[in-house]
Amino acid sequence: MEIDLSKPILDRNERLAEENRRVFDEKGVFVLDLMASPGAGKTSTILATIDALRDRYGIAVIEGDIASKVDAEKISAHGIPAVQINTGGACHLESDMIQRAISALDLDEIDLLIIENVGNLVCPTEFNLGENAKVMILSVPEGHDKPYKYPNIFEISEAVILNKYDTVSVFDFDEDDFRSVVGKLNPRAPIFPISATKGDGVSAWTEWLAGRIDAARASAEEV
Amino acid sequence: MEIDLSKPILDRNERLAEENRRVFDEKGVFVLDLMASPGAGKTSTILATIDALRDRYGIAVIEGDIASKVDAEKISAHGIPAVQINTGGACHLESDMIQRAISALDLDEIDLLIIENVGNLVCPTEFNLGENAKVMILSVPEGHDKPYKYPNIFEISEAVILNKYDTVSVFDFDEDDFRSVVGKLNPRAPIFPISATKGDGVSAWTEWLAGRIDAARASAEEV
Repeated sequence: MEIDLSKPILDRNERLAEENRRVFDEKGVFVLDLMASPGAGKTSTILATIDALRDRYGIAVIEGDIASKVDAEKISAHGIPAVQINTGGACHLESDMIQRAISALDLDEIDLLIIENVGNLVCPTEFNLGENAKVMILSVPEGHDKPYKYPNIFEISEAVILNKYDTVSVFDFDEDDFRSVVGKLNPRAPIFPISATKGDGVSAWTEWLAGRIDAARASAEEV
Repeated sequence: MEIDLSKPILDRNERLAEENRRVFDEKGVFVLDLMASPGAGKTSTILATIDALRDRYGIAVIEGDIASKVDAEKISAHGIPAVQINTGGACHLESDMIQRAISALDLDEIDLLIIENVGNLVCPTEFNLGENAKVMILSVPEGHDKPYKYPNIFEISEAVILNKYDTVSVFDFDEDDFRSVVGKLNPRAPIFPISATKGDGVSAWTEWLAGRIDAARASAEEV
């Protein structure tokens, strides 16, 4: 006999994700779940996103890491509310962790909540957090073959950020192949080549995100 | 009531790891479990290791990926037996997968079996596969702060390979800080800066590995 031990965990998470979703809807908070490998530039991308959108939206950040609070400190130093979740050993965030984290935030002041997931291309894909959109970052040094090896995260992401694009000549990154495979896995997802630390390409990404936030707001007002 | 669902999975894996260990000991196979983030250069490091050691040892490779067989094809093209494991969705290898994979290999011909784990800095650390040593790769573009965020993998690795070292000037990588934190987490682990694709620094790593293989063999002969 085989028992799928993951099922009760996923079911419970799904239930709590719906609870989170209701709270976010009530408060008019757009929630982004940002996923990537370790070191792909999640925090740098969040900082660049904050700089581009802070005049238009109230922003807060939830940082997920196995250990340490270095990321939340970077965000706070930027003048943006940040809550650090340390998962202990868990390789992804779950909805109950988000539930506890948002109790430390004033949701009335927040239009955009960015959740930085634990660095991992696999496990975060299975856990809804109550977000409006999952978006992933691949960084150029990781290589253009990643969609072959980790197809699921490319399939479920609404947009793909291609970070460290300024190093594309340093690495043997075949952008045509990358775009072709991502296009097959997820034809509707835009790909945004950016350099988060230098700012190149960031506005295309942030304008797309602003469009998603405004669309969610408009559809909520219709209801 | 809370039930720790991970315990029976880990216990079963531990039992099978011991079975694997017995088989490897019997056949005199040294087994390396190589762990890293996606795109850190596991396959390139394995290819460089094969080139350095193939005259001294019979080598085979088990490739672990969520999907695709591109890595095993690269190894096979190098004239080395390679078995690809596709985990479906699982974010790490487990001992039962290794058990099935080795049934496709002639262990009498193998002195060194390299297992390329799924790209992930978290989950592979919890699963013994029956290996002699776990070794990790961090690549320079991932950033020097990774030991703060993923301490466990640095703690359990017998050696740390710092790959893509030729790009250290391109990225803001603080090597002193990196060495200091790794030194605190795991004072006995050597750090090998290498460029797997260019060959720089690889011999220090492969000579360390050869020393470990020969020491394991010598201690087996004493018994």
